[in-house]
Amino acid sequence: MLFGDYMLIKNSLDEMKKREISLKVIKSIIDKKGKNSLCDLTGLSGGFLATQNDLNLLETYIGPAIFEEELQIVGKEHLGGEKIFAVNRTSSGILATILAIVKKNTKVIHFLPEFPAHPSIPRSCKLVGAKYSEFDNIDDFKNNFSEDTSLVVITGSTMDHKILEMNDFKAVISIAKNNNIPVLVDDASGARLRTAIYSQDKAIDLGADLVVTSTDKLMMGPRGGLMAGRSELIDKIKTKAHQFGLEAQPPSILAMVKGLEEYDGNNLRESLSKKEKLVLLVDNNFSMFEGTPTGIMVSEKSLEKEVLLNNEINPNISSKDLCFLWAMILLKQENIITIPAVSMPGASPTIRFDLAANDAKNLNINFLFDKINSSFKTLLSV
Amino acid sequence: MLFGDYMLIKNSLDEMKKREISLKVIKSIIDKKGKNSLCDLTGLSGGFLATQNDLNLLETYIGPAIFEEELQIVGKEHLGGEKIFAVNRTSSGILATILAIVKKNTKVIHFLPEFPAHPSIPRSCKLVGAKYSEFDNIDDFKNNFSEDTSLVVITGSTMDHKILEMNDFKAVISIAKNNNIPVLVDDASGARLRTAIYSQDKAIDLGADLVVTSTDKLMMGPRGGLMAGRSELIDKIKTKAHQFGLEAQPPSILAMVKGLEEYDGNNLRESLSKKEKLVLLVDNNFSMFEGTPTGIMVSEKSLEKEVLLNNEINPNISSKDLCFLWAMILLKQENIITIPAVSMPGASPTIRFDLAANDAKNLNINFLFDKINSSFKTLLSV
Repeated sequence: MLFGDYMLIKNSLDEMKKREISLKVIKSIIDKKGKNSLCDLTGLSGGFLATQNDLNLLETYIGPAIFEEELQIVGKEHLGGEKIFAVNRTSSGILATILAIVKKNTKVIHFLPEFPAHPSIPRSCKLVGAKYSEFDNIDDFKNNFSEDTSLVVITGSTMDHKILEMNDFKAVISIAKNNNIPVLVDDASGARLRTAIYSQDKAIDLGADLVVTSTDKLMMGPRGGLMAGRSELIDKIKTKAHQFGLEAQPPSILAMVKGLEEYDGNNLRESLSKKEKLVLLVDNNFSMFEGTPTGIMVSEKSLEKEVLLNNEINPNISSKDLCFLWAMILLKQENIITIPAVSMPGASPTIRFDLAANDAKNLNINFLFDKINSSFKTLLSV
Repeated sequence: MLFGDYMLIKNSLDEMKKREISLKVIKSIIDKKGKNSLCDLTGLSGGFLATQNDLNLLETYIGPAIFEEELQIVGKEHLGGEKIFAVNRTSSGILATILAIVKKNTKVIHFLPEFPAHPSIPRSCKLVGAKYSEFDNIDDFKNNFSEDTSLVVITGSTMDHKILEMNDFKAVISIAKNNNIPVLVDDASGARLRTAIYSQDKAIDLGADLVVTSTDKLMMGPRGGLMAGRSELIDKIKTKAHQFGLEAQPPSILAMVKGLEEYDGNNLRESLSKKEKLVLLVDNNFSMFEGTPTGIMVSEKSLEKEVLLNNEINPNISSKDLCFLWAMILLKQENIITIPAVSMPGASPTIRFDLAANDAKNLNINFLFDKINSSFKTLLSV
């Protein structure tokens, strides 16, 4: 009997230990049943689709030059624009852009589909001493637009995958254009989500001067950022990035090229139809699930409610612990990796099943539903 | 006859074209005679000693966790300290440190063996609004040390591989310690050069609170920075780094682990004895060579003088072009890659033969000398 009137995971140290246990469980599953028996649905695994040949090239002086050339080609195909520049992370690209373009005491205006903004934008503004303001309403944006603006930032889709309406997108760009202010679109997941799922146009095709996307979001690339845009601006940003060490390194560039070559909007759309099937199945059986653009999730509060609905005895453990417990059962019993099992201290306990994850490609949805169902039953019986 | 009264390489575009030609030559050598026929003595190739197994792991959620744990072990062995943190580049580590530790209007004092300082230090100070000053003389340093200092930076060895004397090293650290000011040592190449070649102590063992080294300098690691030091400071720096995207990504961390595992001070010392042998050979036959800590080099002016000594006709091309020409002959005729053949626009035309390069490991020095000799004869005959 694991339930008690205390929290199982009390602090960062416990979270670290939980993670260490999960990593050992994963290792023992790999040792016993092989890597393919694991199903990683975190959607966070870094893609590194390199061959031994690529690696041999990577070690030479010529390798990085070749990958850089290939990146220009596949990057422009993905994002549009005159020139491509790979950065260490999307946040590094935003910092480099603000260092290159935004002067002290000028204004940066950020338009986004929904608050809160990604913290890297206000943080970078603070660093250069710029005034930062953010809006999710086009009228407020219009009324607060002023002469001393040096950069307009648009978030194409938020961390929670809420996307910007095309009308707003076009209106913001047109106001910026009329005032000759450059526009950077933070399209971290949006470069794929907006285009492949919502049939929106590429940020550059909508008139943005610059765009940055995260190569590990909704594609099999490494953690990293890919920028595209006007050559003249990219050159300025590149110079700043090199000064402060913000550019992506050759192994990441190689992995970006491979990830972009592998990317296919059809797969993303397939994950959407898989998701719809899964949503139907879980909603017929549970009330705790919510949809995400590429999968389903259960928050700690919804999980707690569902457990209470199904259990006469009140489980005297915290809702967070319930999430961790379920994630551990999913891992040990069903060999499914979700974020709470392996997350770093402080991460959200929400359990997500991401169907855009590589391991979901050949996954039978009925099979996955059975695993979700049976692991939840185990959770109730603990 | 290639000589004329004009410059062959006139601008960045020409340099780019020169580089493109070199890359094609390299590719055709690889195609015809295989990768092993090339001898890369640039000393700049990124190490990426990963196996297919490592790569498979890298794609999973668990891979980065495993490499991170291994990095703690091999990193501490290499640098000492309580905690290790991998950064995207040494410059990124310096920026993260200054963002984390240095407040506006406080003072950063930099002690180095020789001017000029690496620009990333004053640049990062400027960004946070700190006052920056630099000294290469211990008395000046003492006299300019003041209460409002927030960080002391020491350069262990310069870009030109000039190393700091132990007495100065200890004196600077002792002054900082007496005033409770943290000390960061920029030991980009010094972490290996100072210890393996000059038998100096590790920066941390000399009392530094923090040290950063470049994992592609004098070892077979990727371009990147490795930091070590007091846990409390490293945690602060790590937090800032994650906010702005300055940390190293998993593929680089994997390559750092492999590079550190491969590193052996004995190889570096061997390259030193090889270098001494090569210095004797070249100095008996030429007057243009200068020693570097791990090889030899020829500046454009020295090359021009040597050509004039050996040639009755004045070669009417610029000294820079002479370097590029020799580098191309070294590449095409002898299959030796040096920096001027493949460098990006604006790089130094100095021709270096770096015996700490991986390809120099099994290189016969007499054989290398013959190639240098014969390529120079070709240069004279062009």
